[in-house]
Amino acid sequence: MTTLLVLYRRPEGGDDAMTTFERRYRDEHLPLVAQTPGLRRTRIFRVSEALGSETDLGVVAAMDFVDRASLDAGLRSEPMRAAGRILREIAPGLATFLVLEDAPDLLAGGGA
Amino acid sequence: MTTLLVLYRRPEGGDDAMTTFERRYRDEHLPLVAQTPGLRRTRIFRVSEALGSETDLGVVAAMDFVDRASLDAGLRSEPMRAAGRILREIAPGLATFLVLEDAPDLLAGGGA
Repeated sequence: MTTLLVLYRRPEGGDDAMTTFERRYRDEHLPLVAQTPGLRRTRIFRVSEALGSETDLGVVAAMDFVDRASLDAGLRSEPMRAAGRILREIAPGLATFLVLEDAPDLLAGGGA
Repeated sequence: MTTLLVLYRRPEGGDDAMTTFERRYRDEHLPLVAQTPGLRRTRIFRVSEALGSETDLGVVAAMDFVDRASLDAGLRSEPMRAAGRILREIAPGLATFLVLEDAPDLLAGGGA
């Protein structure tokens, strides 16, 4: 499985700016993301805190695809490109996009 | 659900250092983590790349608990404390620990 993990920093402007971001993220961005071909599952999280350090992260999104080719095709699709345009409006420069690959071999020694 | 998301930066020393980190992470750290009371699921990922930027991240771990109280109890448990001691040896200063809360309300407008 390949997962696109997106880390969103909080916008400047405090709680009001965060509320506006969340509203447009939910109402405009995510409905487009949901139409992405090959997307298996989307999970959205709020960042409560970082343990032992500070963090400027506010939201994390995890989007699962069968494999990297499926992710790449999804990224090229019209819904994802439209979702990206919304993102550049509501979170300019605030998102980090990480491509993750399942590493079950690292769990061989244990893991729940 | 509450998830402890751990972002691991790559150790200095190139591929050899990464191989050593992964071996001790798998053989020493994760078997202790697996004994943590209240831990529902562990997933481990390798970071392939960041899209549109550079990243020094190498591994991401996601550990699911029923709620924040369960996570906090798990963090205080002897297995997790022992796992933390291993981590301070094999990845000193390289890990960021984020506490995430599921945000299903943000998916109300869409999401797969």
